[in-house]
Amino acid sequence: MLYLKRIVLICCVLVAQSGFSQEHPNLILTKQGVKDIKANLGKVPLFDATLAEVKARVDAEIEKGIFVPVPKDMAGGYTHVRHKLNYLTMQEAGVLYQILGDKIYAIYVREMLMAYADLYPELPRHPQERSYARGKLFWQCLNDSNWLVYTAQAYDCIYDYLSKKEVKHLEKKLFKPMADFLSVDTPQFFNRIHNHSTWGNVAVGMIALVMDDDALLDRALYGIKDLKLDAGKDNDGGDIFVEGQKAGFLANLEEPFSPDGYYTEGAYYQRYAMYPFMIFAEALQNAKPEIKPFEHKNGVLLKGVDALLNLTDKDGEFFALNDSQKGMSYFTESLVSAVDIAYYYGDKDLSLLSIAKEQGRVQLDQTGLAVAIGVREGKATPFEKKSILLTDGANGDEGAIGILRSTKHDAFTLVMKNAAQGLSHGHYDKLSFSLFHEGEELFQDYGLARFVNIEQKNGGGYLKENKTWAKQTIAHNTIIQDETSHFNGDYEIGSKHHSDMYVFDVKNPDIQIVSAKEKNAYPGTLLQRTMVMLNHSDFEQPVVLDLMQVNADAKHQFDLPFYYFGQIISADFNYNKDETLHTLGKAHGYQHLWKEGEGGSKNESATLTWRNNNTFYSLTTTTSQSDKLIFGRIGANDPEYNLRPDPVFIVRKNTDNALFASVIETHGSYSTVSELAKNAFSNVKALKVLQSSKAYSAVELTLKNGHTYVFIMANSNASKTDKHSIAIGGKTYSWTGVYYFNKL
Amino acid sequence: MLYLKRIVLICCVLVAQSGFSQEHPNLILTKQGVKDIKANLGKVPLFDATLAEVKARVDAEIEKGIFVPVPKDMAGGYTHVRHKLNYLTMQEAGVLYQILGDKIYAIYVREMLMAYADLYPELPRHPQERSYARGKLFWQCLNDSNWLVYTAQAYDCIYDYLSKKEVKHLEKKLFKPMADFLSVDTPQFFNRIHNHSTWGNVAVGMIALVMDDDALLDRALYGIKDLKLDAGKDNDGGDIFVEGQKAGFLANLEEPFSPDGYYTEGAYYQRYAMYPFMIFAEALQNAKPEIKPFEHKNGVLLKGVDALLNLTDKDGEFFALNDSQKGMSYFTESLVSAVDIAYYYGDKDLSLLSIAKEQGRVQLDQTGLAVAIGVREGKATPFEKKSILLTDGANGDEGAIGILRSTKHDAFTLVMKNAAQGLSHGHYDKLSFSLFHEGEELFQDYGLARFVNIEQKNGGGYLKENKTWAKQTIAHNTIIQDETSHFNGDYEIGSKHHSDMYVFDVKNPDIQIVSAKEKNAYPGTLLQRTMVMLNHSDFEQPVVLDLMQVNADAKHQFDLPFYYFGQIISADFNYNKDETLHTLGKAHGYQHLWKEGEGGSKNESATLTWRNNNTFYSLTTTTSQSDKLIFGRIGANDPEYNLRPDPVFIVRKNTDNALFASVIETHGSYSTVSELAKNAFSNVKALKVLQSSKAYSAVELTLKNGHTYVFIMANSNASKTDKHSIAIGGKTYSWTGVYYFNKL
Repeated sequence: MLYLKRIVLICCVLVAQSGFSQEHPNLILTKQGVKDIKANLGKVPLFDATLAEVKARVDAEIEKGIFVPVPKDMAGGYTHVRHKLNYLTMQEAGVLYQILGDKIYAIYVREMLMAYADLYPELPRHPQERSYARGKLFWQCLNDSNWLVYTAQAYDCIYDYLSKKEVKHLEKKLFKPMADFLSVDTPQFFNRIHNHSTWGNVAVGMIALVMDDDALLDRALYGIKDLKLDAGKDNDGGDIFVEGQKAGFLANLEEPFSPDGYYTEGAYYQRYAMYPFMIFAEALQNAKPEIKPFEHKNGVLLKGVDALLNLTDKDGEFFALNDSQKGMSYFTESLVSAVDIAYYYGDKDLSLLSIAKEQGRVQLDQTGLAVAIGVREGKATPFEKKSILLTDGANGDEGAIGILRSTKHDAFTLVMKNAAQGLSHGHYDKLSFSLFHEGEELFQDYGLARFVNIEQKNGGGYLKENKTWAKQTIAHNTIIQDETSHFNGDYEIGSKHHSDMYVFDVKNPDIQIVSAKEKNAYPGTLLQRTMVMLNHSDFEQPVVLDLMQVNADAKHQFDLPFYYFGQIISADFNYNKDETLHTLGKAHGYQHLWKEGEGGSKNESATLTWRNNNTFYSLTTTTSQSDKLIFGRIGANDPEYNLRPDPVFIVRKNTDNALFASVIETHGSYSTVSELAKNAFSNVKALKVLQSSKAYSAVELTLKNGHTYVFIMANSNASKTDKHSIAIGGKTYSWTGVYYFNKL
Repeated sequence: MLYLKRIVLICCVLVAQSGFSQEHPNLILTKQGVKDIKANLGKVPLFDATLAEVKARVDAEIEKGIFVPVPKDMAGGYTHVRHKLNYLTMQEAGVLYQILGDKIYAIYVREMLMAYADLYPELPRHPQERSYARGKLFWQCLNDSNWLVYTAQAYDCIYDYLSKKEVKHLEKKLFKPMADFLSVDTPQFFNRIHNHSTWGNVAVGMIALVMDDDALLDRALYGIKDLKLDAGKDNDGGDIFVEGQKAGFLANLEEPFSPDGYYTEGAYYQRYAMYPFMIFAEALQNAKPEIKPFEHKNGVLLKGVDALLNLTDKDGEFFALNDSQKGMSYFTESLVSAVDIAYYYGDKDLSLLSIAKEQGRVQLDQTGLAVAIGVREGKATPFEKKSILLTDGANGDEGAIGILRSTKHDAFTLVMKNAAQGLSHGHYDKLSFSLFHEGEELFQDYGLARFVNIEQKNGGGYLKENKTWAKQTIAHNTIIQDETSHFNGDYEIGSKHHSDMYVFDVKNPDIQIVSAKEKNAYPGTLLQRTMVMLNHSDFEQPVVLDLMQVNADAKHQFDLPFYYFGQIISADFNYNKDETLHTLGKAHGYQHLWKEGEGGSKNESATLTWRNNNTFYSLTTTTSQSDKLIFGRIGANDPEYNLRPDPVFIVRKNTDNALFASVIETHGSYSTVSELAKNAFSNVKALKVLQSSKAYSAVELTLKNGHTYVFIMANSNASKTDKHSIAIGGKTYSWTGVYYFNKL
């Protein structure tokens, strides 16, 4: 381990040199930005608080000394954590040098960079051989790119402090070799459409801007020209090289973002990619404004920030679409940065200020200053999350994520995934949904099977259960045919298709509807799911009506799982618990489910009531006598306790035509202090299928108060003005538009 | 259902009559108390806020009308809930009449009482036949007593408002018959040492005081004289009649309370019993001060309040000793009442004011007024929970509950149960423990198997799993011999014995020790457990050293379970997960545990690390090669999902002499936002048994930083001044007092 004690910090006081072609800083901080910040110091609470926090952290690190160890460990291990801390601290120290003018920060960055310049030229690729693109400082190029994105900023901040000789030395020994290493030497990493490549492109682009190297910048923006790569897969199973694929920063901006700003990998990776996208856009805007990064693709970057904020629950946590570690939220640094940049370079959206206020800190540059001043002046307006449709695909025509929100207070949020595959981080869960109540999951999306940065768990990397469980269809709240995942769990096939949006209608806040079709998950089977968030005086809380219409060209077994949370209070059907537990199946994720019990209903519907966090929930679902109602739990074939032992309730039908219709109620409360149970029973007396066909799905809902309602969905004509008329059981229903909802 | 609409509330304005022998109110509220309250209205925020809240609730009920249905339902059902609401509302309406002087409240109470007087005389015992002592208004006399305790207060409050004729009518038709019904007609309920009987005694005593009926009061205080009962059991399996047993309120005060104020059934039932104890003591103090209720048994009632407050975790929730529903806390009404009464009739302990402040409301009488004035005047001082030993048994010689607290901030709380059986609500878990970290359970006591007042779950009553699981030893963090519960799970045997305290030493806040012995749980086997809370600079947080010393006269299988929470991160030993799950055993609770996997360690100790709520925890336990390390989960043989599927880790040894030594660490943190894992590894390198005998238990603890410590416990001489000297492995350890702890 290389250990450089801070021996030179006091004595080395070189006079700052100038005379280079470009002014510095001009990457993130600008000369004018620094001037404005200095003029406002001590006057802007949010900015001052962040500055004080950063200063305390950096001062503590400077006190400890400089450590640049020879790379050795996986994520979570010492050398990994140390190099990560180094780039974070260098970036902050650079900013402090600019804002506070104290040379100690410049010297700290310079000495550390010198240590890296000593180390880097002799470094082989990292000894850990897990990655498809091994880095030098870290086990994968991705982390080396992180290093360079942050360090480029530090370098820019102290550039004017360095001598010409030092600049030349650093660029020759460290920055230029690293930029080449991350691009031309590792094209399988650099020249793709992928969040990894975005980091690589931005790393190279950021250092190119500081070094004023146009050739390198061109490579960052447009990729390596005329490159031929062997086909292959990355560690996540993603395609490394696709024929005819454009590359570079701008291509990565065009391709995975939809026109609505939705990033096809999902919110968790969008959050991760947002930092390089936004920070490089800011740098380009400062250094090369002619590129107009914030206007690219109709301002998709700014739309992306808005989309990302809308992809969160009441607590600001991202929906766990595709590979996502739960708990990640807009309180993460990259979103602080994104919100500030979006405010400053966008149209000064005052609702972003309320997010910044919640975040409690700002980016230490002119964007953060503007945000902090806005907050100080009380300009923040509420950021009201809406029911929103976020299209997927570069052109917005590859399905969508539909989000229904019960009220502006976001008490209930339904997230329905009718999108494309989502690249290598995608899960096989077409038409799946998750549902939130007051920011807590009522029905969950499992998220990823990984403990990010926890060394004991496979070095913090993806676990094999991510593939065998988390990506499989059965891990999600959607339908599975013959115990086989959508597209047979095949990435190539899945990547060719996407679900098709049918209806997204949220005009009436009391009857919000999202409906989509999927015809490719199982060839020969048409799936259409319509989900309705219904706010009605007959229910204490908004309820969800879920209509999963299945029409197949032959009989199959269909399973519809509901991943609830909490403890079962009652079931109105008979079931038996098993005396020994076996797995529910052999493959496609079924091998990870324990079958706990099974039952069936003699009625046309079955109701299950459970309690979680002292609230009661009920699911009423239509049944026939041959249907099986299965109780299960995650955790089988899990040798290292990598999975969470969460429960599931599965409705199983053997059929070629079925409407899985369900009503989800939230009701009542329990207090462990007063020990009073209020409204602990479902309001639903019966739910009955009136029609199940490709043309129409119709149900009759009878409540315990005697009221009966009929809901009919027209499945093959989404027109808002066309008239429908159908006869069911001697009664004719006539209406205009895609759905009928009325009291009988 | 009897339905009396509030038709007479306006027109019936009878002039209040007086001329009775006693002044009213004089039960809880007093004439002087009412005068003081009226003089302070609008000036005491906490009191005013409570009053406003109560008034709003009562006004809403009056608006709805009077409903006195014919009793029919179990707990949670309509008639049960309605009658409960009635007595609560009457009590509050009575208080409002006194304080506000508005006759509408008196009329409401009178009309409702008249309705009850109409209904009661013809009522048979309740149609639900589950109880050993069926009530009339409710399924059990317990609830009828609740009704009378509250209603007596309402009656006292409006007594002066009623005509002589009304008084006579109510007493003849309702109160006197009910008092007889609850006592002489149901002696198996009334004449016991049990919280049920306390309620019965107090119900009869309260109404006796209002009616000024000395014979009835005598019965309440001293029980029914010369009663012979057939032997039998109550619904919880408790003995109904014990030869020579005293009865009545005072006996119930003497017997189950220890001199320290610990109530032998545990905190949950102490909380429940506290209301009748305290409210009747207040009533006696007001009406018959010569009885000196607060001085009885050296002021045990006031000590009981202090004990109860100390039997809570950081959030004020009671430890789940014996039958306890988790989540019950000092925010419950009976503790509001208890705290206010203890403040007023005790020595005005200012630390009680801080609890009252947290509670946010007060009892609407002179005690609550005094508390609210104290709070208003800023007199509240912190209630600092201490490490405390609470002896069990009427004379304090039947074991004890030992509570160790890491600091005054109560970050870690260890609760060790070395007490007596705890009557019919007792569990078979001698020397068991639970451990809390920041108010959350780190190792849990399961508590009871019951969903109080949730009708779907056996009418809210005890579930059969309470007996087959929750009471059994394996459900707790203590040792089990040959898969058989302590005392063979036999209530008679268990009730004859108690554990013996050996050491409780908390003078040194950095080395706090509780140690106790149990020789009767398994005849021929001596169990001694020593638990140490160790605050040491080598650990990030206080750690617990657990020494379970087992010495048997023959070889047995011993299981020591640890009911942790969270997800396993790593194990430093090999284990296999099972491909089908079977129960761990057949009986004594083992039939409710799924065996998930099993392993063993080749080293002298094994370390398991898990994560919960983003904190890491590690258990390191001494092992020999033949020991089995078992992973399990609750939930087998649970046909109705009455149990929580919580995990367990079990250390199994076949031996006649063993020291189960363990170190429990809390370390590090994980953030799902920064995704940083800090200090995710155990600090312990090895734990080794140096000596295991009846005389000494000794371990050597080696840390990863190279430090080694030796802890030795003298098991048969608790003197603080005696000297010990023993040779272990060529080294002689000499010390004074019961334990040795030093760096090697």
